[in-house]
This record gives sequence, structure tokens and C-alpha cells, in this order.
Amino acid sequence: MSTNPIVTGKLVCVALNDQQQLDKLDATFNEAPYKAAPTQPVLYFKPHNTWNTDGATIAWNEEGLVVGASLTVVFGKECCRTSAEEALSYVEGYTLTHDFSLPEKSYYRPDIKGKCQDGTAPVGAVVVPASDVADPQALTVVTQVNGETVGELPVSQLHRGVAELISIISNIMTLQPGDAIAVGFPGDRHPVKQGDKVTSSIAGVTELTNQVEA
Amino acid sequence: MSTNPIVTGKLVCVALNDQQQLDKLDATFNEAPYKAAPTQPVLYFKPHNTWNTDGATIAWNEEGLVVGASLTVVFGKECCRTSAEEALSYVEGYTLTHDFSLPEKSYYRPDIKGKCQDGTAPVGAVVVPASDVADPQALTVVTQVNGETVGELPVSQLHRGVAELISIISNIMTLQPGDAIAVGFPGDRHPVKQGDKVTSSIAGVTELTNQVEA
Repeated sequence: MSTNPIVTGKLVCVALNDQQQLDKLDATFNEAPYKAAPTQPVLYFKPHNTWNTDGATIAWNEEGLVVGASLTVVFGKECCRTSAEEALSYVEGYTLTHDFSLPEKSYYRPDIKGKCQDGTAPVGAVVVPASDVADPQALTVVTQVNGETVGELPVSQLHRGVAELISIISNIMTLQPGDAIAVGFPGDRHPVKQGDKVTSSIAGVTELTNQVEA
Repeated sequence: MSTNPIVTGKLVCVALNDQQQLDKLDATFNEAPYKAAPTQPVLYFKPHNTWNTDGATIAWNEEGLVVGASLTVVFGKECCRTSAEEALSYVEGYTLTHDFSLPEKSYYRPDIKGKCQDGTAPVGAVVVPASDVADPQALTVVTQVNGETVGELPVSQLHRGVAELISIISNIMTLQPGDAIAVGFPGDRHPVKQGDKVTSSIAGVTELTNQVEA
């Protein structure tokens, strides 16, 4: 099994946080049984069997794989019930997470099978110190597959921004050193095939590359 | 924050595995959007900020708390894609988990907030070696609040038994040493109030006691 030197506690991922995706899904949310858009962040975990590293090869799955990339906030000190105003002071630094998952058929059931396959959550090798990032909301995550851009998500396009998420999540569960939050993925995850090379980057900040098993 | 010496990797919990509860919910499952009962185990994680120990006091939550207890399978070696026939050979031993959670209003959204409050997953102090348990399906988990029995769940009443669950889950994600599975809780979680003492036991095998903060 792979491990990752950065994430040692929990890797919390935020789903349905791309405002463009939410706008598209808006009509669906008004149907039964929800009858309303989510009022709270939709969270899921990538457990420790999923953790992986920059450069790692991702095992192919016969059901297919899709990928998304997210700016990821890494914690270096305990953060419990903070306000949005104070939230960024708990951030040790920033990196990237690739979430490789099985193609999703429905939002109606927690997709543990699709999200928890071994080695499907590579986290960048480098944590860029928070002091080097003036404003995380100004960053943009770009994903390329075999050199072609397939996704581009400005953090400012997230429905809930970095500081607000840290505040809300830290009011649910304490964030500890070694914990990380992947703050939001593009609504349309990109399908990949065997042998594809996936590179995500934040210009001038960090980069993460993984290849799907050939 | 509390830690637990037994669970160091992931604590996987199985929801909706009490056959009596499933029978009651059957009509609901046939409504939109599911239109069918779950065909796969419904899993959730208790992340590491929830881990706690026998004897620990559980923080009160103003939204209320409910409790359920589950037989818990602890792994001592890596278990990947095993069959139900081989599954029990990967079990190091058995213990108990209390899952204290916020009262649940709906099954339609993954209940991260309700399940992930700090310190809400005490795991028994003792792992009873698998060699001392002839048949985990023959065990019964009894829960008492302030000395009064509020729940009694024979493992044989679980929709999916221990070996089948290990097989299915190990085909989704590798189980590693320090991982554990709470195989099933009574369908009706029991509400507790401030100061309540909760003791769960498996006769002759193990016991777990926690008190809700007064």
C-alpha cells in the first residue's frame, strides 16, 4: 500500500462545490426527495488506503475511472470551531489532490465504492507554505490529460471559499496536524483511459502528475 | 483529542444492516429516488477525531445524541479482495464500538455532520483474539443505559454477516492492520441525555462503558 507523508490524519473532500455544476443541477435538487439544494457542504472522505503520491501510477479499474483535481489545504496545528475570519491562520500550506474515482451514476447514495479504491487519492509532494500564498481564492487549478487541458477551476468559482469551508468543517470535526481538505473539484470529472498521464497545476505554485496503469 | 490504541487506520461502519430495520424501511425504499432497497452495504467512516476509548466521557451536543453499539472486527494483517470463505482468517479479534451521533432526520444525504463529532466513536479497550471466538455470528450485543437494557442485537440478525461484509468491503478497499469494521448497529438508535451511562457488552467476551458529559 502507498502512503503519503503529508496527509496522516484525514483527507476531507468537498463535493458539489463548483458553482457552475450547482447551477446545472439546480432543477434536480428541487425534485423529491431533496426538494432543495444542499444547505451545508457535501463532504466525503478518502481513507488511508487511497492515499498516494506525486508520480504514482494509479491502478486501472474495469468499471472505468474519472479524475478531478482540487486545491488542498494542509493543517499544521489543531483547528476547532474557528471563524471564517480566523480560518486561514490555521493553514500550514497548500497542495493539490487528484481524486480518481469510479464513474458516478447517482448522487442519491454515498458513493463509498466509487471513492475508496486503493491508491486513488494522490496528494502533491510539496506543501507550499501559506505565507507564500497571498490569497488562495486567487488560485486556479488546471488539469491536463496527455498534455491537453481538460479542466480549469478558479478557486473563486467555488460556491464556498477556502476560509468559509475551514470554518464550517472545523465546527463539525476538529482538524488536526496531518489533516487536509480538498476544497472543491470541477463539476464534470474527466474520464481517463489506461496509460493516460494526468497533470494538474497551480501556476507558479505546485504541480501533481500521475499516470493511469497501462 | 482522544486517540485509540486499537484503531489506527480507518474505522468503517455499516449502516442499515439490521434486518428488522430493513423490513420496516422496505416501503420507503420503493419510493423515489431509490425505487429499490440498497443492493450493496451502506458504509460510512468515523474519522480519527471521533476515536475514543472505554471509560471516556462523551461531549454533550445541544442537538442531542443517540447511541448504538456494534460488534467490531479488528484487522491485524492486510486483507485485499478476500472471499467470504477466507474472510475470517484475516480477523485479529473482536471488540465493541459505540457510535454516538446526532439524531438523524433523513437517509437521503450522507450524514457527515451527525457522524463525525469529536470523540463520538469509543472502541473497546480489549480485542478478544479471533481464536477465542468460535463463531462471531453467534454473539449478541446488549446495550444498557443507566442499567436498563435499551438494545439487543444478535449478530445473526444482521442482513449481511461478518464474513460476507469483510469480503465485500475488502473488494472495495484494502483493509490494513489497525483498520476495523463495525459490522452493524440496531436500527433504532437510542437517545441519551446528559449524564447517562452507556454500557454495551457481549456476554463473556467484552464490555464497553461511556458516560455522556453531565
